[in-house]
Amino acid sequence: MSQIYWSMRLSKVLLLIVALAGAAASAAHAGSGPDVAHFTLSNGLEVVVVPDHRAPVVTHMVWYKVGAADETPGKSGLAHFLEHLMFKGTEKNPGQTFSRQVAEGGGQENAFTASDYTGFFQRVPREHLKEVMAFEADRMTGLVLTDEVVRPELNVVLEEQNMRIANNPGARLGEQMDAALYLNHPYGRPVIGWRHEIEKLDRDDALAFYRRFYTPNNAIVVVTGDITADEVKADAEATYGKVAERAPSNPRQRPTEPVQQAPRTVTLADARVEEPSISRDYLVPSETTAKSGESEALDVLAHVLGSGEDCRLYRILVVDKGIALSAGAYYTGTALDYAKFGVYGAPKPGTTLRQVEAGIDAIIDDVVAHGITADELDRAKNRLIADAVYAEDNQATLARWYGAALATGQTVDMVRTWPDRIRAVTADAVQQAARTWLDRRKSVTGYLVKSLQPEESHS
Amino acid sequence: MSQIYWSMRLSKVLLLIVALAGAAASAAHAGSGPDVAHFTLSNGLEVVVVPDHRAPVVTHMVWYKVGAADETPGKSGLAHFLEHLMFKGTEKNPGQTFSRQVAEGGGQENAFTASDYTGFFQRVPREHLKEVMAFEADRMTGLVLTDEVVRPELNVVLEEQNMRIANNPGARLGEQMDAALYLNHPYGRPVIGWRHEIEKLDRDDALAFYRRFYTPNNAIVVVTGDITADEVKADAEATYGKVAERAPSNPRQRPTEPVQQAPRTVTLADARVEEPSISRDYLVPSETTAKSGESEALDVLAHVLGSGEDCRLYRILVVDKGIALSAGAYYTGTALDYAKFGVYGAPKPGTTLRQVEAGIDAIIDDVVAHGITADELDRAKNRLIADAVYAEDNQATLARWYGAALATGQTVDMVRTWPDRIRAVTADAVQQAARTWLDRRKSVTGYLVKSLQPEESHS
Repeated sequence: MSQIYWSMRLSKVLLLIVALAGAAASAAHAGSGPDVAHFTLSNGLEVVVVPDHRAPVVTHMVWYKVGAADETPGKSGLAHFLEHLMFKGTEKNPGQTFSRQVAEGGGQENAFTASDYTGFFQRVPREHLKEVMAFEADRMTGLVLTDEVVRPELNVVLEEQNMRIANNPGARLGEQMDAALYLNHPYGRPVIGWRHEIEKLDRDDALAFYRRFYTPNNAIVVVTGDITADEVKADAEATYGKVAERAPSNPRQRPTEPVQQAPRTVTLADARVEEPSISRDYLVPSETTAKSGESEALDVLAHVLGSGEDCRLYRILVVDKGIALSAGAYYTGTALDYAKFGVYGAPKPGTTLRQVEAGIDAIIDDVVAHGITADELDRAKNRLIADAVYAEDNQATLARWYGAALATGQTVDMVRTWPDRIRAVTADAVQQAARTWLDRRKSVTGYLVKSLQPEESHS
Repeated sequence: MSQIYWSMRLSKVLLLIVALAGAAASAAHAGSGPDVAHFTLSNGLEVVVVPDHRAPVVTHMVWYKVGAADETPGKSGLAHFLEHLMFKGTEKNPGQTFSRQVAEGGGQENAFTASDYTGFFQRVPREHLKEVMAFEADRMTGLVLTDEVVRPELNVVLEEQNMRIANNPGARLGEQMDAALYLNHPYGRPVIGWRHEIEKLDRDDALAFYRRFYTPNNAIVVVTGDITADEVKADAEATYGKVAERAPSNPRQRPTEPVQQAPRTVTLADARVEEPSISRDYLVPSETTAKSGESEALDVLAHVLGSGEDCRLYRILVVDKGIALSAGAYYTGTALDYAKFGVYGAPKPGTTLRQVEAGIDAIIDDVVAHGITADELDRAKNRLIADAVYAEDNQATLARWYGAALATGQTVDMVRTWPDRIRAVTADAVQQAARTWLDRRKSVTGYLVKSLQPEESHS
C-alpha cells in the first residue's frame, strides 16, 4: 500500500495527476504541537480539527474509509473511478457547481484514492468553510450519475492509466511487483485498477459502491486552519449532521497473507528503459499493525539505510564503491494491514544489476550483524523529527497526516506522540527490526531492464 | 489449475490422500468409441451415461460445478472442507449410513476437489446404482452439520494440509508459484486453502457454500458401466429428479488476468530438499478457452518436449549432456479459464540449477526457431491417442474424463472428437504454439533448493 492517486482537476476534462507516494510515506507524522479536537457526530461522522491561525484560510478534507483494497474482485479501479465521478454533480448542485464555487472564491480542490481510503479536499478562505461542508455533505449521498457523464469519464480514467502506468515501465513493474508481493491480500491490486477490468466498469458498479461506502459513519472530516473546534462543530452539525446513515461502516476485513516462505523476483523489460534498476520490497508491519516501537524502528532503519546522501546505501554504493548512480530505501508505514519496506539502486554503466543487488545485500547483512552506530541513530531521529515539525507548517500536510492516520486505524494520539516514539527508538531496536523484517522470504525483487538478457533476467 | 485432491476414506477419521494431478492432466481425452448419452432433467441436472458391459459394475459420479476458484476471498479451502463434510450424514441417512451401505455392497467410494469442481463417486455392483443415486440425491440438499462433526473434521483437513503441503517443500513451492503465476485470477489460491484461512472456517461458512452451490442445476451425474441410458434415466428421474432447484447455477465469472508482462521467479529453500529442481509454468489457454487446434498443439508440444525418455528434454539434458537427473514437460488443459504448460528439470550433483535452466531454454528456443520433426509429430500423436484408447478400459477414468470436461465448460462432443483433433495437429501448429505460448513474460520459474545461496536464490 503506497500508491496514492492525487487528481488535480484543472478544467472539465483535463486531469493532471501528481504522484505523491513519497510525501504520503511520512504522512502520519504530525508533531505534538497544535491542539487537536476530535469528536463524532450522532450519525457516526468523525471530525478532526487542527487550528492554525497564521492565515485566514482553511483546508477541509473528507476521507472515506474505503479504497482499492475494498473492491470486489473483478471490479478493480472502482474506488478510483468513483472518486472521478464524485465531480459530476448532484440534484441540488448539478454539474460543476461545487467546483466552480470553490474556484470563484479563490480556492483549490483536489481528490485522491489509495488502497485504504478515498479523499476530497478544498483549501478556501475561512468564511467559505460552511459552504464547502454543505457541498461535500450534499454529494455524500446526492450524487447523480447518468451514462452520459459516466462513459466519457471512463475514457478519462483509461487515459490516466495509459499515461501513468501503460507508458511507464517503472510503474508497470511496480504493478507486477505488488501482485507478486501480496499472495492473498488485495493490496496486490493496482489502485487505478487492472486495465481490462477498468474497461468494464459502468454506472451501476459506481452507484452500488457509492451507496455501500459513502455514508457519514464511514467518513472522517479533517479541518485545519484559521478556525476553532467549536466553530467547526457547529458548521459540521448544520451540514454533515443532517446526512442520515445509509449503510453500515466498512468492516475492512480483507483476506490476509499466508506465511510467506519464498523470495520472488519480477523482471520487466522495455525498450524505453534507459537506466536499469533493481528494487526490492519487503512485507513489513504498518504503523497500525506493528508491535509497540516496531514501525518507529523501521522508520529509523529506512532513514539510516537509504535517505539522503549520507545514508549507507548512497554513501557506499554511489560514493565509495562508485557502482551505482542512485540507491536508497523507504518505509511506507501508513496502512491498515501491511506496509512495504523498500530498497533500490541503479547501476552505473558497466556495472550489472546483480553487482548492485549484492552491494545492497551486503549493506543489509552488515546492519543485521552489527547494527547501526549511535551517531547514525541520532542523526536519523533528529532528521525525522525535524521533518515532521517543518511539515506542520503546511496546512494541507497537517490535514493529510491526521486523515491518513485515522483512515488507516490509527488514533489522534498516535499521530501526536509520533515524535516522542521516534525519540525512544534504540539502536538495538533498529538492528532487531532489520533482523526480523528484512527477510528475503517475505520479499519481491524487481528488475527493470531494457531487454530480457540471460544475466539480467536471472534465467 | 492442476491441483486435484482425491480423498480416499478408509475409516471414519483416517484419510489417505492421493495426488492424481498427472492423471488428471489428460483426463478429458476419451476416445470416440462408446455410445454416450447426455440429457438434462427438468430440474437442470445434467446426466452423462457411458455404457460398458464388460463387468456387472457401474461407476457413479456426481460433479458439482464449484471449486476452490469460486470461494469468497478470505474463505479459501471452503470447497474442499465442504467435500469432507459431505460425509457427515443427512437427516434421512444419518452418520456413516451412505458409506457403510457402499462398503457392505462391496463397493468403493471417493471424493475430490479442484479449482473448478467438486466430485463424489462410487463404484458398486450394477444393482446398487439406484440406491447410490438416492443416497447422493439425498445429500445434495439434506446434509446435517453440527459443530460436533464440523470441528473435528476441520482438524482432519488441517492435518491433511500439514501432510500434503506444510511438510512437503515441493508442494509449498507449488503454492507460492501459483500465487505468483496468477496476478488476479483465483487459480492463484491453493485448492486446499491457505492454512490461516482454513483454520477459521466454520459450520456457517460450510452451510452457506453448500446452500449456494449444491443444487441439481449446478451438478452433472456421470455413470459408466453395465447399464443402459434408459435405465439410468429412469433411476435418475426417480431419485435426483425429485430434488428441487434451490439456488441459481454458478455463473463462474471469475476475475481475469491482466496482460502479463514480467517473468517471475520464486525460490523456496528447505533443509529437507535433497534434490534441487527448477520448474517453470507458463500461463496458456485451456481446452475450453483455446482457439481451434491450439490446445491440441500444446498437448503434442508437451509430449515432444517432455514426455517419456524419448522426449527432447530428457534425451538432451539427461542422456546426451548428462547434466540433469530428470527433465520433462506437461500441459494440463482441463480447466475453465486458464491452463498451465510446465517444464522442469533436476540437476545432477555438480551441475547448477542455472545450467539446467539454460539447457531447457535452449531446447525451447530450438523448437520455436526450427519446429519439430515429422517423426516427433507422428510419435507424439500416436502415443497420445493410444493412451486415450487404453485409458478407456478403466471405467472410473472414462467417467472422470466426461465429468472433468463437462464441469469445465467442454461438451461431450469435444471429448469424443479429441483423438481426431489430435490427429489433425500439424508440425507448424506445434511450432506456432511454442512461439506464441512459451513466452517468459507469462511465466513463473520456481527453484527448489536446500538453502538460499546467492547463486541458487538468484540474488
